[in-house]
Amino acid sequence: VGLFYALKFEVTILGCGAATPTLRRNPTAQIINLHDRFYLIDCGEGTQVQLRRFRFKFQKIDHIFISHLHGDHYLGLPGLISSMHLLGRIKPLHIYCPEPLEELIRLNLEYSDTYVNFDLHYHHHNFKKGELLFENQAIEILSFPLKHRIACCGFIVQEKKKRRRILKEKAAELGLTIADFARLKDGEDIVKPDGVMVKNEDVTEPPYASRKYAYCSDTAYYEKIIPHVQGADLMYHESTFLSDLEKRAKDTFHSTASQAATIAKMAEVKQLVLGHYSSRYKTTEAFLEEARPVFRDTETAEDGRTFVVGEQ
Amino acid sequence: VGLFYALKFEVTILGCGAATPTLRRNPTAQIINLHDRFYLIDCGEGTQVQLRRFRFKFQKIDHIFISHLHGDHYLGLPGLISSMHLLGRIKPLHIYCPEPLEELIRLNLEYSDTYVNFDLHYHHHNFKKGELLFENQAIEILSFPLKHRIACCGFIVQEKKKRRRILKEKAAELGLTIADFARLKDGEDIVKPDGVMVKNEDVTEPPYASRKYAYCSDTAYYEKIIPHVQGADLMYHESTFLSDLEKRAKDTFHSTASQAATIAKMAEVKQLVLGHYSSRYKTTEAFLEEARPVFRDTETAEDGRTFVVGEQ
Repeated sequence: VGLFYALKFEVTILGCGAATPTLRRNPTAQIINLHDRFYLIDCGEGTQVQLRRFRFKFQKIDHIFISHLHGDHYLGLPGLISSMHLLGRIKPLHIYCPEPLEELIRLNLEYSDTYVNFDLHYHHHNFKKGELLFENQAIEILSFPLKHRIACCGFIVQEKKKRRRILKEKAAELGLTIADFARLKDGEDIVKPDGVMVKNEDVTEPPYASRKYAYCSDTAYYEKIIPHVQGADLMYHESTFLSDLEKRAKDTFHSTASQAATIAKMAEVKQLVLGHYSSRYKTTEAFLEEARPVFRDTETAEDGRTFVVGEQ
Repeated sequence: VGLFYALKFEVTILGCGAATPTLRRNPTAQIINLHDRFYLIDCGEGTQVQLRRFRFKFQKIDHIFISHLHGDHYLGLPGLISSMHLLGRIKPLHIYCPEPLEELIRLNLEYSDTYVNFDLHYHHHNFKKGELLFENQAIEILSFPLKHRIACCGFIVQEKKKRRRILKEKAAELGLTIADFARLKDGEDIVKPDGVMVKNEDVTEPPYASRKYAYCSDTAYYEKIIPHVQGADLMYHESTFLSDLEKRAKDTFHSTASQAATIAKMAEVKQLVLGHYSSRYKTTEAFLEEARPVFRDTETAEDGRTFVVGEQ
């Protein structure tokens, strides 16, 4: 099914542990390969080593998105920036983050007397409502509010609506040329120089589906995220605890596996990935056992595992 | 030879890489087991995972010494403090560091809305001259200035002068009792109630040697450190480069393997450990080949390797 898409859209888990890292699980970070451009989401301590471990090149990352200012989601960023500098980076780096992170990075650089050879552009989150953070011709990345102990947001990474695909042989048969293709892709009919009209649907087929990834960083069970994550091909939702610790999840503004699955079901996503497990859990089978009866197509994150968006 | 000492004095390398960490080498950190108390020296990114990997308990560390504010020497500290908190620490933690680190830690905690359940005591380095940072009955830890791009110091961890050891059978033969032992240990002669004098050297033997470890964090070749590290049983000295890059070492205020060995020889230390290798070096054999002709008893640090102080 994945071959249907000409362009890559993959999410690799760099870390899926909760606040205290362990030998099995690094703190939170994910890297997204979308059309062979790389986007880093969260950057817990040790992320730069995880990038090396799973063979991603630091300098291919131009945009970094930080969900909130708990250490397990950003403490790897100063070191990554420093390494990018030492390895010779000159192209700009964009950081989408809570406002105070800019000060923290600036002070780290200042006290180490480091002047990086590239521009750092900071874009501060608005935590009150969803907003468009980044777009290019083909994709867009948005934020939306989560419910956590401190200001925290999730991210949507998605392809824009695509254009219709031309049936080239048929178009040639009917005497259409490359000059007509742009309008055909946009769904227009064509009137040829001889006055004959070619209906769009006779020489095109529908566009490939636009794929959508939803990242729900630390959050309590929160139904208000549903309109944002609705219909995602892949949704990562934290599940720090199992249901026997639902009270603890609530008190700490985290979710259980069952709650994550409930959100997935209500939002009609196609696949759910669980992560951000408390270090008390040595294995993750129990998370699947709890989530799958609620939402069948559930998988568990583990460090180094890659999920292909749209391959469900 | 190690059995000669009743009490442990071991240095375990948690990270021996230079600024950019790799899969083989974490950034700088070392943990010292001295008489079964644990002292952490420097704390690069990922140190908390290294502590787990090599099975050291976070909560046994009460004193942390940070040499300078380059990220590869302190970026693991906020995460370690956070994990200590989350794992239930209540006893105080002492941090000996450059003054601005206090602000960085405070801001990290503030922005994550974290109130740790233990007291953090900061002791700011004086980088101008050597000073006593910590002492108890048996040991002391001192700092001394290094020559680096920013203010940086090394550390001496050593046992205080020990007391003489009583030859218990001889003392008993001569009618001495436990009441006399304290003065004997201090080297005094004893006049018994019958007026007979017992000479100290007849019932005691010399104290065990006091062991000394010298830690030379990032530094250019700098002979002024010699009086501080003089006679150390074990000296760690950075060797970021090999001699073919001596110019680069000088420009970046680092040392070559040969320079580290020269300091070891001039300071008459007993054993030298090299570390803080640039990530360009995949293996360390060339460091030994360069250093040993200058100073024979040279070893190379690697992550997880333990050196016993006084076992040379």
